[in-house]
Amino acid sequence: MKAAYLESALQVHTRDVPLPDPGPGEVLIRIRSVGVCASDVHYYEHGRIGRYVVREPLILGHEPAGEVVALGSGVSSLAEGDRVSIEPGVPCRACVHCRTGHYNLCDGVVFMATPPVHGAFVEYVVHPADFAYRIPDHVSYDEAALIEPLSVGLFAARRGQARLGDRVAILGAGPIGLMTLLALQSYGIRDVTLVDVEPFRLQKALELGAAEAVDGRAEDVGQTLATQFDLVFETAGNSTTLTQTTRIARRGGRVVLVGMTDADLTPIDTNELVDKALDVAGVFRYANTWPLAVDLLSRGAVDIKPLITAHYPLEAAGQALESARIRKDANIKVMVTP
Amino acid sequence: MKAAYLESALQVHTRDVPLPDPGPGEVLIRIRSVGVCASDVHYYEHGRIGRYVVREPLILGHEPAGEVVALGSGVSSLAEGDRVSIEPGVPCRACVHCRTGHYNLCDGVVFMATPPVHGAFVEYVVHPADFAYRIPDHVSYDEAALIEPLSVGLFAARRGQARLGDRVAILGAGPIGLMTLLALQSYGIRDVTLVDVEPFRLQKALELGAAEAVDGRAEDVGQTLATQFDLVFETAGNSTTLTQTTRIARRGGRVVLVGMTDADLTPIDTNELVDKALDVAGVFRYANTWPLAVDLLSRGAVDIKPLITAHYPLEAAGQALESARIRKDANIKVMVTP
Amino acid sequence: MKAAYLESALQVHTRDVPLPDPGPGEVLIRIRSVGVCASDVHYYEHGRIGRYVVREPLILGHEPAGEVVALGSGVSSLAEGDRVSIEPGVPCRACVHCRTGHYNLCDGVVFMATPPVHGAFVEYVVHPADFAYRIPDHVSYDEAALIEPLSVGLFAARRGQARLGDRVAILGAGPIGLMTLLALQSYGIRDVTLVDVEPFRLQKALELGAAEAVDGRAEDVGQTLATQFDLVFETAGNSTTLTQTTRIARRGGRVVLVGMTDADLTPIDTNELVDKALDVAGVFRYANTWPLAVDLLSRGAVDIKPLITAHYPLEAAGQALESARIRKDANIKVMVTP
Amino acid sequence: MKAAYLESALQVHTRDVPLPDPGPGEVLIRIRSVGVCASDVHYYEHGRIGRYVVREPLILGHEPAGEVVALGSGVSSLAEGDRVSIEPGVPCRACVHCRTGHYNLCDGVVFMATPPVHGAFVEYVVHPADFAYRIPDHVSYDEAALIEPLSVGLFAARRGQARLGDRVAILGAGPIGLMTLLALQSYGIRDVTLVDVEPFRLQKALELGAAEAVDGRAEDVGQTLATQFDLVFETAGNSTTLTQTTRIARRGGRVVLVGMTDADLTPIDTNELVDKALDVAGVFRYANTWPLAVDLLSRGAVDIKPLITAHYPLEAAGQALESARIRKDANIKVMVTP
Repeated sequence: MKAAYLESALQVHTRDVPLPDPGPGEVLIRIRSVGVCASDVHYYEHGRIGRYVVREPLILGHEPAGEVVALGSGVSSLAEGDRVSIEPGVPCRACVHCRTGHYNLCDGVVFMATPPVHGAFVEYVVHPADFAYRIPDHVSYDEAALIEPLSVGLFAARRGQARLGDRVAILGAGPIGLMTLLALQSYGIRDVTLVDVEPFRLQKALELGAAEAVDGRAEDVGQTLATQFDLVFETAGNSTTLTQTTRIARRGGRVVLVGMTDADLTPIDTNELVDKALDVAGVFRYANTWPLAVDLLSRGAVDIKPLITAHYPLEAAGQALESARIRKDANIKVMVTP
Repeated sequence: MKAAYLESALQVHTRDVPLPDPGPGEVLIRIRSVGVCASDVHYYEHGRIGRYVVREPLILGHEPAGEVVALGSGVSSLAEGDRVSIEPGVPCRACVHCRTGHYNLCDGVVFMATPPVHGAFVEYVVHPADFAYRIPDHVSYDEAALIEPLSVGLFAARRGQARLGDRVAILGAGPIGLMTLLALQSYGIRDVTLVDVEPFRLQKALELGAAEAVDGRAEDVGQTLATQFDLVFETAGNSTTLTQTTRIARRGGRVVLVGMTDADLTPIDTNELVDKALDVAGVFRYANTWPLAVDLLSRGAVDIKPLITAHYPLEAAGQALESARIRKDANIKVMVTP
Repeated sequence: MKAAYLESALQVHTRDVPLPDPGPGEVLIRIRSVGVCASDVHYYEHGRIGRYVVREPLILGHEPAGEVVALGSGVSSLAEGDRVSIEPGVPCRACVHCRTGHYNLCDGVVFMATPPVHGAFVEYVVHPADFAYRIPDHVSYDEAALIEPLSVGLFAARRGQARLGDRVAILGAGPIGLMTLLALQSYGIRDVTLVDVEPFRLQKALELGAAEAVDGRAEDVGQTLATQFDLVFETAGNSTTLTQTTRIARRGGRVVLVGMTDADLTPIDTNELVDKALDVAGVFRYANTWPLAVDLLSRGAVDIKPLITAHYPLEAAGQALESARIRKDANIKVMVTP
Repeated sequence: MKAAYLESALQVHTRDVPLPDPGPGEVLIRIRSVGVCASDVHYYEHGRIGRYVVREPLILGHEPAGEVVALGSGVSSLAEGDRVSIEPGVPCRACVHCRTGHYNLCDGVVFMATPPVHGAFVEYVVHPADFAYRIPDHVSYDEAALIEPLSVGLFAARRGQARLGDRVAILGAGPIGLMTLLALQSYGIRDVTLVDVEPFRLQKALELGAAEAVDGRAEDVGQTLATQFDLVFETAGNSTTLTQTTRIARRGGRVVLVGMTDADLTPIDTNELVDKALDVAGVFRYANTWPLAVDLLSRGAVDIKPLITAHYPLEAAGQALESARIRKDANIKVMVTP
């Protein structure tokens, strides 16, 4: 089968590799669609993300969906021909985090496209059957693939204890910011303000139903939006917006940090955090979101298709990564469709 | 009656003032003991705390206990002669914070010894009856007065969702750090490490039952204690310890910020906050702690007497403040006893 | 002014009574619409509800909305001419329940139309300004009045920790059951099954968007729906449906009891409650729901108008009660409009 | 090796059976102490518990501790010679309950001594390494065995959201009631009233530090203790005490049901449940309690030794069961020590 390898920074080539066999409890899945994530682009551009370094050629891609084509022994929850969305991180199932429902914090997780674990820019993968979720026929593979980033939004909403009636700000209108918007809407929350510096993304936010879209270059958000929000999400991952979070939250408000920044340390007004008695929650990946996301997509409660801006075949995975890298003014989600 | 006024920075004088009358729902209380708080000392030294400025001579003191000597109309919950601990902040009872149980966040609160509201370095005060809590005879007025700082510790524990079995660090072993230690012990939590730079305070922490007392000058706490704690309290209010909070918390851990710092912005590793999926909670004063504190003191579950290091009469309130200001090597709580 | 008095069972007469004056913090409100509640009907029919007995002639009605026509001293949150929805229970603001956010449990509450406190079938009432909530012009007085029963639904949803994705059953499709349906829909919850024995109500449930409407006479709901629901609301208040709650909940599910029954004791399968590790929550009135309800109605997120089935003027309050009593096949909410 | 089989009701015989081999991730444990549980006694006496029927000879015992004597492949968390407490139920690790932290609700759990799964009245068992918890040398095997029933108490406390300062009642002073008392004490809760009809057990409750021990035969507990408790645990499993739970809880209180009753349906005052806005939680086994229990025993925070009233060797397992069955006036926990 074919697989697209990141050979070194900015170099992606397709190779032929052997077809894997599903072991006990696993299924073989023919990949049909994979979303390109910012972390894929970061590995593609820099060859590393912090302490995770690409030392051997690596298959990227961790937002996959596909079709079950073979079952390992003992699998009864899925059948050949099932269309599935794949949850890309498989935890150890034994540590304290796994046992208490926080498997996203498992130190032993095997996560696609995180070196040295290969990802989904490939024709077939084997995966544990219980981390592949059946989707109905009227949900496309593209949508099924994008359950992964939608999960970040859903989990961020959960971590922020998003409540009906909340007035919400989302700093950053990239894929994660927009997915958070969609997640909040599914909770019945309508008063959501997006902040970004990219007009294309602000426009997209309004199209998706944001109550307001604020250009962060045009105004000092920390001042003009001061103390206005019950709930603030930071998805941009830069120091300016991180510092703004405490400014724009109301007394007793909640702040959710999703974005990672290049800075080692970020200036935060901890006095404001104390004086306003804020709750700040860090979001690392997600847990227990797939069943909800499948339900939302199945009954049309969330429409993530408007986020898809480009498609590339597997052979052009490098171009897909390049497009995602250089055309932030035109792309939200780029899809690779083997 | 006598009252000790802060006339200007470092100047405290006793004046004669008229005895107040209790209105409907209020009681007249003869003050018997008042703790000196770090905020009293700050006003005494600098004439202000941030946006709160002492513009007129001010009576300090907001940790009072005393004896009910007269009842306003309609008061049935208390009787003359009752010994009471006074909760010094009376909220508006009508705003969204008051109605939802978070009256500590009430913007209309009237709080003792916060300009322009006078405090308790005085012989008598009037106070709403339902913010004065009866204490039994075997609890001293000194202990009843110290329910106020104990409340900060109890509320910090609650905000941090302190759980039996938690491994805990408290950064700062001043009055609030030690009160937090005592609060945690009352919850059955034993594995508590205190960090400070003052040997006298570290020694006191060990006497009170801390599992460990670490000298913050002798070691780089962020490194030596990295990733060790389920729950971290910051009570020192300085940039070094604030930055350490994310370092020493474990994945999925909780951080509680109590201390206020002189810095406008504090460097925080928000990536660590995200990667570890931390929960950070700011603590502003307290709500609904007095009934619990009275219960704990009444049955001897907490012993706060070892924190008391000096007593002064009302006429020497200035000396009490001065002692608290300059003798941090010998004082935890200084008491004024009118 | 005119007031409709319940003189004795089934006897309602209009009397002339003096116009009241608003005291400090109060407003005088001209009543424009009042919903008829099942408890009004119960007093009308039986002269009592359990321990609450109508000993003196009583003005019924506790779901009112109207127009502010005069302000007591110190009122700044409202102005003459404001259109308001009235929260009919005013708590003591001092007890432990009031202070911890659970003011619905206040033993000192003064609640409209609960003997001996008069209600709102009257031309004018005085009420504390902070328990009257301004509504925008595009929300009708009828809708504003029905915030009261909607609040029961919203609070029941909150007590049941209603979660996006929940599969829900509501036993009883009367006003409270249907309001609970609307409340759940505002939370984004779509998979809601209603059960009732009255075809008119089942039809109304489907019109309002219930996923399914089950006739409780036609099938043994405890069997056919066994173990199917994440969340079960009991609003019918009869032994059969109360016993069904544990049957139809799944393992780890939640049950919310809203309905009161005539039976002293009800047979419950406590073994099933243990084996399924259920959480059961009793709902008594509501707290902190008006701001959310006003927000939902203001932005059209909930449409309660289809529940209104009849209108009567104040002089015909007796007929309104009689209609609500005998025409359950045709009425959901009957309104009195002075 | 030897194993004690329940051949039929009241018939226990020792057989020789082959020594099992530990598979991957498993360890072989030499059993050193096993507690006799009420469910063991029920199987011994009746040959069934509800839908669980002993159809083939069964090894009873599910409260075991022992010594690791061999490791299966891939085990690194334990070593030969380790002393361990065994958690007897091993869940599937894949279902929604397992993934969300509620593995006690897993339908695929393999639980010792529940037909047809054999238990621990045997010389050796194999068990997954991560469900065997190392204990320090100063904790005896008897204590390590009793972590199982202590877990029920700890989990019941957790389900009841036991809070410092709560006034608590425990209905039933058998092993589970007393373990719940000990669990609550470890949380710092002191005001605990036990109710039972057996003087020996009431006396034991007082010895263990109960604030009060009430003889349920001498007074009508529903009346004399009406509305007194923040938190009520039912561990007796009979209709009288189950009905009392709502009576003795205060408004806004919590009720935890642990006991199973022989009755199909139990009379409950659901109106009182609604009017008091109670929260009722069913407890089924436990999840995530062992690490806490090991910690509590290791630092001497809980002393469960006073609950042990008799010891029998493996060959006398039948006598152990018979003693537990007929001498409720003298036994709390009977231990079998192979």
